[in-house]
Parts: sequence; structure tokens; C-alpha cells
Amino acid sequence: MKLLDLYAKMKGDLNQIELELERSVSDDHALLSDASLHLLKAGGKRIRPVFVLLAGKFGDYRLDVMKRVAVPLELIHMASLVHDDVIDDAETRRGQLTVKSKWDNRIAMYTGDYIHGKALSIAAQLPNPQIHQILSHALVQMCIGEMEQIRDFFNTEQTIRHYLLRIRRKTALLIAISCQLGAVAAGADRQTANRLYRYGYNVGMAFQIRDDLLDLYGTEKQIGKPPGSDMRQGNITLPVILALRDARMRESLLVEIAAIRERGGQADAGRAIEMIRRSEGGELADQLANRYINKALRAIEGLPGIAAKKNLIDIAHFIGKRNY
Amino acid sequence: MKLLDLYAKMKGDLNQIELELERSVSDDHALLSDASLHLLKAGGKRIRPVFVLLAGKFGDYRLDVMKRVAVPLELIHMASLVHDDVIDDAETRRGQLTVKSKWDNRIAMYTGDYIHGKALSIAAQLPNPQIHQILSHALVQMCIGEMEQIRDFFNTEQTIRHYLLRIRRKTALLIAISCQLGAVAAGADRQTANRLYRYGYNVGMAFQIRDDLLDLYGTEKQIGKPPGSDMRQGNITLPVILALRDARMRESLLVEIAAIRERGGQADAGRAIEMIRRSEGGELADQLANRYINKALRAIEGLPGIAAKKNLIDIAHFIGKRNY
Repeated sequence: MKLLDLYAKMKGDLNQIELELERSVSDDHALLSDASLHLLKAGGKRIRPVFVLLAGKFGDYRLDVMKRVAVPLELIHMASLVHDDVIDDAETRRGQLTVKSKWDNRIAMYTGDYIHGKALSIAAQLPNPQIHQILSHALVQMCIGEMEQIRDFFNTEQTIRHYLLRIRRKTALLIAISCQLGAVAAGADRQTANRLYRYGYNVGMAFQIRDDLLDLYGTEKQIGKPPGSDMRQGNITLPVILALRDARMRESLLVEIAAIRERGGQADAGRAIEMIRRSEGGELADQLANRYINKALRAIEGLPGIAAKKNLIDIAHFIGKRNY
Repeated sequence: MKLLDLYAKMKGDLNQIELELERSVSDDHALLSDASLHLLKAGGKRIRPVFVLLAGKFGDYRLDVMKRVAVPLELIHMASLVHDDVIDDAETRRGQLTVKSKWDNRIAMYTGDYIHGKALSIAAQLPNPQIHQILSHALVQMCIGEMEQIRDFFNTEQTIRHYLLRIRRKTALLIAISCQLGAVAAGADRQTANRLYRYGYNVGMAFQIRDDLLDLYGTEKQIGKPPGSDMRQGNITLPVILALRDARMRESLLVEIAAIRERGGQADAGRAIEMIRRSEGGELADQLANRYINKALRAIEGLPGIAAKKNLIDIAHFIGKRNY
């Protein structure tokens, strides 16, 4: 099944989630609602809700319960985007003005806090304390991941392990708990929830590696902004770390990265990107992404063969595919 | 009993809370821990933990349970301070450099998010879903309060009702739920928890009105910074709204406030402060603070006459006292 077909099949339930997302941020302060809705309407793949719903199929699937997990997880993701845009000083996201650019940094900060609070108040309707524990632990780890990203800006000495730990916190964890919490909320057994967690974690790692690859190998049309924005911002991703291990280009790539840093956010990263593309960095990162996809697939091998399992396999293959 | 004696009497338990506060932010990322500890060590009255502990005395008081309420509430307060300092562009707080000034705005934002996440993960150890519901609702309201403050900067047309709604969200609510949750976590009955909530709400309102008065009527030594910082920032507080109702000075005060706005954050608010001091604004605000204190005292009249009740009465009287 193609991914579009999957979305079509889930349309009814995803529409309910979408309505609930809008409702959740609509009923208070006008400016906070406007800013939140602006962000919401900019779209997104709603991949976390999709994972929650699919994971829920391995237990007692009830949409009203699933909603209370899916909506908070998407809101938490959104809140982190608003705060990231402040940090990254980003003017646009998904082709729309960011909250910090349409309004200002102060409003973006409180909009993030507000969306965050809304997420928690919806999750708080669920009585299971395990859900709150998993959620709050992930929130802390996500902050640590964001801080590590700031600390590691332009750090060309960082190791692969370092990078992996960072994207684990920054991206993979929220996807992992989307799968896990979908199962937990549906009352699935512990082993099932753990398998889905591992699936989500590995898919999440592959997803971020692919995203980082796309920023260096994609065209402006594919990415929606000029390639190399990670680089210009100082975010040293896996292909760069791998390219720096190539003795033939290490020195000149270091010089190029130092120059980008020197010139600040508006620098042209064209030459650095060219070097990385000539290196084996892309190929090796690609292989690592595939290893994570395989691990994700193995994690759910033991799950019962219901339609949702097939969907999870399809999504993993889709994320595993080269998108540039 | 004097307030110092009360702190002395509660010292053992408050020291445990202090240790737990430090522990809660110490075990992860170095920079996040440093920034959080910096904030923690700058001190503070820990008034929210004090309220939690005293409220807990009306039920089955167990320090290990009380901790899990008191620590999150103080952390939530701290997280809001870090974010406020970003908004207010504040260089110092309680005589110490702020996180945004010692590090930078980005780090302050994530430190706030991190402390927030830590608060939630400690609260998540409590199984009672009512606690999470009360807490997350308050978080949302606090954000709305902060946004209203931004929106109302330099708004000289705002009403008293507007001001009261804002400080309710910004300050009173967190103090109200500190009292309420202390009782709920200790398993006190609903009526007791509600009475304590009303006590906390009214004490919180008086507390903020007093704080706003202090900023206009206190000396630099009492406040720890030159008076009028609310004014310079555009935060129109109750005495100002009341002074603006005085026809004899309204026009000249409006001109003065417009001039402060014009000159930006570094403006001298001396003349505006002088006008307000000549008006009846201070006296009327003072009366309103006292009305809230009386309401607070009435709210707990029906509670059993244990020592904690006496302490709550003493605190209310202390907050009710003119401090300038």
C-alpha cells in the first residue's frame, strides 16, 4: 500500500484528530489561538498521530482514548517547532511564515509554552500514570537534545555516537513513545508496547538521518528552501561527520565550515555541500538509515499479522527510501 | 508567630524540599543543570512549597508525597521566571545575573522548558489524575496571563477588572493550586481543598498587588532595583490605573507614560512615579489588597484549629502588611 492510500484509509480518524487539534488551541486567548492555529494550518504529516492510531490497533482501539494520546503528542511536536524557530531564527517553515516571524520571539516563546500546556491538559484526562511518566520523561530528554544541538553547533570534532545520541533525543524518542503510548492507552500488553517502542525508535532514527541527508542532497524544490540550511546554522549532521573522516578532504572541508561560521547565517554553503557530495558521507549515512529501518522491521516481527502491522511495515519502507 | 519563626519551625521539611529541588535538576546535561542550579541558588522565598506543606497538614501529611507536589510547583514557578526574564530582557533577578544574561536567550528558553519538564516528571510519580488535571490547567492559564501582560503593555485604557484577571492568571492561580494540591495529595476532603484554594487565590491576589505597589512606592534598597521598573517596561499596574482615573492628573500622567514608552526601556520614570504617589492610587490599591487578605482569612475560618491554620493566618497578615 502506498502512503497516500494509508492516509486515505485512516482519513476518518485523522480528521477527528485534526478537529481535536484545532479545538484544543481555539478556545482561549485570541493571540495565542491565532498563533497556534497559524502553525497548525501550515500542515505537517501528522506522523505522530498516525503512529499512535496504528499502535492502538494492537489493543482495544477506541478513538476517544486514542485522541487523548495522539493530540498531545502532535501538540508537543508543534510546541518544540515554535521554540526551535526562535533558536534557529527561522523566517519560514513549510512555506509559511513562522510564529516568531509573523509575530515576534516573545509571542513564539509563550505560544510554545501554551501549546505545551494544552498538550498536557489533554493527556491529563487519561487516568493511567504510566502515560504521564513516559511523556514527561520524553519532554526532559527532548530539551536535553535541543541543548546538545546548540552546544554542538559548528563542533567539527563530534563523533557519530554523539550525533546519534542527539537525534535520538531530538527526534526518535517522540516517535518511539507515540508508538508505545498508542499501545499502552489501548491496553495492549507490555511486550507489544515495547516492540512498538523499538519500532518507533528505529524508524525515528532513520527518519532524522534521511532528513539530514535531504538537506544536503536534495534540490531547493524538494526541500522547500535552499539546501545546506543545517550547515549554515552550524548543525553538523551525519554526512558531514562522515565526510570529515575522509583524509582527502578533511582539511579543506574544515576551512569551508570555518568560513561559513565566520560569515554567519547568510553564508553560501555551496562549496561545502559539493565536497560532502563528493565524499562517501552520503552513502554511509544512507546505509546507516537502512540499518535502522531493518531494526524497526525486526522489532515488530513478533506482532500479530493485522492490517496495522502491514501499514507500519509500509511506513518503515517509505521512510527508508531515498527521497533525493 | 513571625514569618522567620515559621520558616525556622519548618526548616527540616523545607531543607528536604531544597535538596530535592537541587537533585531534580542536577543529573543530566551539564549546561542545563548549571543554568537551573544558578537560578535555584539565587534563592527565593519558596512560598509555594510552604503553602503545599501547610495545606498538607489538613490531611495525612507524608513528606515524601508532599515533596512530589511542592517541588514541581516551585519548579514551574522558576521555569516561568526564566522565560519572563527573556521577555523582560532582565539582566538581574534577586541581585544575581539572569540565565539569559549569564548565558543567552536560547539557553534561557530551553532551560525554562527543561525545568518545566522536570516538574512534570516529578508530578507524574503521583497516581492521582486530578493532580495532573489541576496542574496542567494552571499551566495553560499562566501562559494566557503572560500573553495578556505582553498585549497590555502600555495600554493605559485597561480596566481594573482587566488587571485583576491578568494577575489572577499570572500569580494567584499558582499559589491557589499550591494550597489546593497540598490538601489533595494529603487526601484531605474536597471542602478542605476548596477552602485552601480560595485562601491561596486571595492571598495570591494580595501578594501581587503588594508587589506592584512596592515597585512604585518602595526604595531602591527595598526593591533591589530602581523603583518603576514595571512602568519602564510598560506593565501598567493597579496604582497606575487608579491614578489615571484621577481627573486632576490623568492628562499629564498619560503624557509622561507616552514619553516613557517613547524613550524605551532605559527611560526615567521618576516623574510618573511622583504623580502616582501624589494620587490616591496607592491608597486604593492598598485597600483592595486588604480586602483580598480578609477574604483569604474568611476562606479558612471553617478549617480545624491546628497549628498550620494559625500559620496560614500569620502569612496572610504578613502579606497584607505594607512593605514600603
